[in-house]
Amino acid sequence: MKKVGIVMGSDSDLPVVEKSIQTLKELGIPFEVHVFSAHRTPNEARSFAQNARQNGFGAIIAVAGMAAHLAGSIAANTTLPVVGVPCSSSHLDGIDALLSTVQMPTGIPVATVAINGGANAALLCAQILAVTDRELAQRLDDQRQNAAQKVLEKDKKISQQYQ
Amino acid sequence: MKKVGIVMGSDSDLPVVEKSIQTLKELGIPFEVHVFSAHRTPNEARSFAQNARQNGFGAIIAVAGMAAHLAGSIAANTTLPVVGVPCSSSHLDGIDALLSTVQMPTGIPVATVAINGGANAALLCAQILAVTDRELAQRLDDQRQNAAQKVLEKDKKISQQYQ
Amino acid sequence: MKKVGIVMGSDSDLPVVEKSIQTLKELGIPFEVHVFSAHRTPNEARSFAQNARQNGFGAIIAVAGMAAHLAGSIAANTTLPVVGVPCSSSHLDGIDALLSTVQMPTGIPVATVAINGGANAALLCAQILAVTDRELAQRLDDQRQNAAQKVLEKDKKISQQYQ
Amino acid sequence: MKKVGIVMGSDSDLPVVEKSIQTLKELGIPFEVHVFSAHRTPNEARSFAQNARQNGFGAIIAVAGMAAHLAGSIAANTTLPVVGVPCSSSHLDGIDALLSTVQMPTGIPVATVAINGGANAALLCAQILAVTDRELAQRLDDQRQNAAQKVLEKDKKISQQYQ
Amino acid sequence: MKKVGIVMGSDSDLPVVEKSIQTLKELGIPFEVHVFSAHRTPNEARSFAQNARQNGFGAIIAVAGMAAHLAGSIAANTTLPVVGVPCSSSHLDGIDALLSTVQMPTGIPVATVAINGGANAALLCAQILAVTDRELAQRLDDQRQNAAQKVLEKDKKISQQYQ
Amino acid sequence: MKKVGIVMGSDSDLPVVEKSIQTLKELGIPFEVHVFSAHRTPNEARSFAQNARQNGFGAIIAVAGMAAHLAGSIAANTTLPVVGVPCSSSHLDGIDALLSTVQMPTGIPVATVAINGGANAALLCAQILAVTDRELAQRLDDQRQNAAQKVLEKDKKISQQYQ
Amino acid sequence: MKKVGIVMGSDSDLPVVEKSIQTLKELGIPFEVHVFSAHRTPNEARSFAQNARQNGFGAIIAVAGMAAHLAGSIAANTTLPVVGVPCSSSHLDGIDALLSTVQMPTGIPVATVAINGGANAALLCAQILAVTDRELAQRLDDQRQNAAQKVLEKDKKISQQYQ
Amino acid sequence: MKKVGIVMGSDSDLPVVEKSIQTLKELGIPFEVHVFSAHRTPNEARSFAQNARQNGFGAIIAVAGMAAHLAGSIAANTTLPVVGVPCSSSHLDGIDALLSTVQMPTGIPVATVAINGGANAALLCAQILAVTDRELAQRLDDQRQNAAQKVLEKDKKISQQYQ
Repeated sequence: MKKVGIVMGSDSDLPVVEKSIQTLKELGIPFEVHVFSAHRTPNEARSFAQNARQNGFGAIIAVAGMAAHLAGSIAANTTLPVVGVPCSSSHLDGIDALLSTVQMPTGIPVATVAINGGANAALLCAQILAVTDRELAQRLDDQRQNAAQKVLEKDKKISQQYQ
Repeated sequence: MKKVGIVMGSDSDLPVVEKSIQTLKELGIPFEVHVFSAHRTPNEARSFAQNARQNGFGAIIAVAGMAAHLAGSIAANTTLPVVGVPCSSSHLDGIDALLSTVQMPTGIPVATVAINGGANAALLCAQILAVTDRELAQRLDDQRQNAAQKVLEKDKKISQQYQ
Repeated sequence: MKKVGIVMGSDSDLPVVEKSIQTLKELGIPFEVHVFSAHRTPNEARSFAQNARQNGFGAIIAVAGMAAHLAGSIAANTTLPVVGVPCSSSHLDGIDALLSTVQMPTGIPVATVAINGGANAALLCAQILAVTDRELAQRLDDQRQNAAQKVLEKDKKISQQYQ
Repeated sequence: MKKVGIVMGSDSDLPVVEKSIQTLKELGIPFEVHVFSAHRTPNEARSFAQNARQNGFGAIIAVAGMAAHLAGSIAANTTLPVVGVPCSSSHLDGIDALLSTVQMPTGIPVATVAINGGANAALLCAQILAVTDRELAQRLDDQRQNAAQKVLEKDKKISQQYQ
Repeated sequence: MKKVGIVMGSDSDLPVVEKSIQTLKELGIPFEVHVFSAHRTPNEARSFAQNARQNGFGAIIAVAGMAAHLAGSIAANTTLPVVGVPCSSSHLDGIDALLSTVQMPTGIPVATVAINGGANAALLCAQILAVTDRELAQRLDDQRQNAAQKVLEKDKKISQQYQ
Repeated sequence: MKKVGIVMGSDSDLPVVEKSIQTLKELGIPFEVHVFSAHRTPNEARSFAQNARQNGFGAIIAVAGMAAHLAGSIAANTTLPVVGVPCSSSHLDGIDALLSTVQMPTGIPVATVAINGGANAALLCAQILAVTDRELAQRLDDQRQNAAQKVLEKDKKISQQYQ
Repeated sequence: MKKVGIVMGSDSDLPVVEKSIQTLKELGIPFEVHVFSAHRTPNEARSFAQNARQNGFGAIIAVAGMAAHLAGSIAANTTLPVVGVPCSSSHLDGIDALLSTVQMPTGIPVATVAINGGANAALLCAQILAVTDRELAQRLDDQRQNAAQKVLEKDKKISQQYQ
Repeated sequence: MKKVGIVMGSDSDLPVVEKSIQTLKELGIPFEVHVFSAHRTPNEARSFAQNARQNGFGAIIAVAGMAAHLAGSIAANTTLPVVGVPCSSSHLDGIDALLSTVQMPTGIPVATVAINGGANAALLCAQILAVTDRELAQRLDDQRQNAAQKVLEKDKKISQQYQ
């Protein structure tokens, strides 16, 4: 199976990244984790992106805050799907990172998820890999049914509690 | 090759959808276009999403404005990757549609692109299909080199003009 | 008397829901509480909405945060009045939930109240039921006079304190 | 049948009000239209609200822009349901009117709809009156099915056009 | 000397009001404090405003949060200068109260100060009363020189500390 | 009678200033108009402010856009009341000017009115001068009654038209 | 004299760039103009930045809209001062470009000017070059006096016109 | 070497200023620190700015919150480069200070950095001084390589940890 690359702009983004890691582990998807800064180590970020497809990656998650250029600069150096996770690490609660990640110009898309949405970024990568992987697609369907089951149980419990 | 489904919440979103269509045509990717409303024809939207994988779709683009629920409600009914395009059709220039599309809860990701970013939505779908399609990946690389070439030519022209 | 249905997108919204419950209890209005997710248990949400009128409901309160689609997706499946309560559960203090709830397209209104406005959502439902229920209308008038009385007492106390 | 009162803060809001009027006419709901300013004719606004229930009104629509206090000041003088329509008449595209209308304190709810959402305000009033009026409820269901039918026809036309 | 009226929408706004009180006391300006709610005790608010000029008031400070209508509804019932203080009591940090207070329609101005700016509201009232009161104007000039002196002392201390 | 000083940061703000002028003329209040830039002619702005009280001014209106410092820098050099009018001259529709004008630090209040609110700025100055001028207060009351009368006439016309 | 490099992300930004060019020409400062895209021609952008100091540049202006990464990615590849100009080319009036340009992480500053502030970007570069160039500093002082003179003339004209 | 002037609007901004001081010390750049208020000690601020060039300053950092006029009013009185640091000291998280600092009119640029970006403000001054100081430029390059090295080490550590 192709790997998912997870890159973060700073190790202060680790709590968000760990939500991605946990989701990928639950789904049995191989991954690599890196700290690359679009601004402080641009060469390493570029090199990782340029070689990602031939190195066996199928999708890349980029996690960054403030003027979050990491996802865009990864996306500029590969045609693999790049998933951007804006972080709430600034004084503006992540709205700066959200706009810096999602408002990409034509030609270089970044698949943006919610602020601090590390788990959904991993799920999106799993969905991408599952397009041609029936078994993984089945696991995603199962996981979703489990999630639905949990909501149903909460509904049962709470609807009785407040009767 | 798997198809891309394009769904819009209202036919007033057609100009954005047409950017998706043009991009998919340029890349030779088959597609279907639909008008489904998350609120006015929820059954049709749900049915389309639930059957999309078995009907040969590999990714779905959902285009909607205002309290844009279409992408999320498609995503709730399939585990295929869903790309959301927020439209600037409201009095708030699309910031309402952007937040309604991107701020999805854990479990149901929507791959959000820029406001009115119909072309990038199609490109993202192409990147998703290209993960396991070398020929399409090559076409994406070629297209990107062409785009770079055009920027280089503009640079040449403008740098001389303002000498 | 018709019942009020209270649905929340996640049990993390319970503190807001409890303000609705308390208000309905004070007014002697029957209610049911449910946890339905527009995205994780869309079938249950839809089914509840579709049957709400014949099951004796007169209005539905939908409480949700982030890209809050719950109220809209309930409203898409009933012509009962639906009251939306945007929650401040995201990194954006509820402005995402507010816009996702209030900016509904023509045809599917959601009666939106303030961020975390659980008490006012219940009051609004009471007002709706009181349109044809003189006794309930009287209770609402009494309650409002009591609230005014409390403000008057505070005014008396504070205007003397700072003399 | 009870009447719907429509009040606007300024006759410059007439285009939004006319969307309410048209919707009420289509549904056969009686109505009255007034120009009251929360700030310039506060006595008339208050008097209208205080007498609305005994004058046969079942719900009131208040349409206003900028620091839109009209809906709130109507709601402060009646326990009938009040529907607020924020208008985009300021330099801030209606976000000021939206916040001024929806962020009401506990005790005085305003059922807020989208910016310039005159049609949905009328629909919401119809839904309120239909809680105890089976025939009107049926008309709302029929109208919604017609709206769905129109979307289905657009879907058919557009899905064929872009085949 | 004319009095300053201070009205607050809720006693939870007292910390902001106390900054006004302290400033007025320092300047020897007489004042009265009230709790009036634009929505819960509209009659008392109106009555206070209508009689304020003949009751010896020269300016009124109105302190309120959320959809802050208090200043506007006071201003609608007097032609005395009304100073509005938006409070940060909502989930939106006071931006809702700021827009609800400042974006008044033509004809009914509210002199708006910063979010939670209780001290400046009192200073502004003092400036208004000082237009025709030389002694008070002198006290304002003195107070400002004292404030400047304190900044100069801080400058001296800090510029030496970091030498 | 004391004069009102009107200063604008740029002659592109003239349309807003003319609303102030018209209002002052209607009320028979003497005024002076100036173009001072907080940044380009700071000396003239300061000198005007420092001498305004002794030159017979009773209040100053400052009209400016973008990072609108004019009102604040006038206010820093006088203890006369300063009314700030934020202009919508930037790409941000005046929200930058509003925040730059209203969010003043403790000690230097600016009485801020709505974006482009030139007429209300003049009315506020009139209210300030009327605190100790019964005749002017009477004119303000008359003007307000006239405005109310116009709303009542519109109400009459429109309520009949839509009967 | 060292040159100023002007780079734009797209030739649609030319109107903003031309304001920079005009200002530099007026001040007699040599410059070069380029079209580099942070995303479409990242190599050229990087190469330009890495060699800029040895190629005789003293400062670089980067002009871009939307998720404006250009200034940041230039700044990541040089320690020359980089001036960022956010453009209003998106549906969000440039607030996305502003936040993407100014909210840079520690270590890689971008000197950000106003939205579409091409002239000020050039002036800032001139100020940077003038730190060690007395003649240029003198020209800047002269230019500023001329600008002040123009404001004074407008003041004279307008203050007489509205007497 | 020319000095950097650091001015803050209030000593509550010291934590941000200390980041500037530390950075300048690390780079061996001489500096002076002052507390000047654009509004409370405008004369001192102006005088400092007017004499800064002849007093040996090469750049000035201005740190202020709320309606942050300090940087602009320094810039209005010198043609030295002025770097503005907006502070998050208000209820609006610094967005007011950011807009008040960056949205300067043509003619008076302020080089704005991120909210609370004290370290980057100092770095930017160092870059400005390094334009004609090869040794300082070398120190900046070295410092940047060190920063890159730290990111590389974090990458190594984290990529192994999550293998």
